[in-house]
Amino acid sequence: MNANWLDEIKWTEDGLVPVIAQEADSGDVVMFAWMSRESLALTAEKGEAVYFSRSRGKLWHKGEESGHVQKVKSIRVDCDKDVVLLSIEQVGGIACHTGRHSCFYHELQGDEWVAVEPVLKDPKQIYK
Amino acid sequence: MNANWLDEIKWTEDGLVPVIAQEADSGDVVMFAWMSRESLALTAEKGEAVYFSRSRGKLWHKGEESGHVQKVKSIRVDCDKDVVLLSIEQVGGIACHTGRHSCFYHELQGDEWVAVEPVLKDPKQIYK
Repeated sequence: MNANWLDEIKWTEDGLVPVIAQEADSGDVVMFAWMSRESLALTAEKGEAVYFSRSRGKLWHKGEESGHVQKVKSIRVDCDKDVVLLSIEQVGGIACHTGRHSCFYHELQGDEWVAVEPVLKDPKQIYK
Repeated sequence: MNANWLDEIKWTEDGLVPVIAQEADSGDVVMFAWMSRESLALTAEKGEAVYFSRSRGKLWHKGEESGHVQKVKSIRVDCDKDVVLLSIEQVGGIACHTGRHSCFYHELQGDEWVAVEPVLKDPKQIYK
């Protein structure tokens, strides 16, 4: 594959790009993570989201442990070509390691963050 | 206002947090930017998105020039409390400085980024 499209991305000094994962059907923003050049290339090739884990310093094929892979419907980039937006199908309906549908489950109510989404599956059952 | 909720955010070394702006009605992700502690506090207080411009090094009340302000419907944070998701009403229907509805208007088709959203208003007419 011609990789010019990867060259067009404005990578950070660390060689990463921020990525927003949005569920195609619901429109819900379910996750935010980072990708390296290699992980974005793999994401396009496999049709499944492969992030770069900054904490572990390595490629992270989302769902590799949990089975909750993200099937990629489309890949977009913003006007400055420094942020990626994935439209995905979230297998298992759970994107968050807490067992919730979305990672964005805390809502500001008054001056407090309140968890407004239920745990759909006990993380102990997800990560065995 | 009690500012404990701001203390709970995991700010970057530069004192910023990445922010995703999603249009409430359409579900479209229209923008990605950064906020400082001060700008997030102002966003909550005013009910309008106030970002921190990294390139200009100062507060950026979105729409201050264009009139395309973002009215904030809700503020969420993710499981790690290091990414913010705003649900907004995009005044004027244009979030992007190119005059498009959303900044995420390039879609990967084959090995090329293709602009798939129309320019709704000439930027010369937006920024006079």
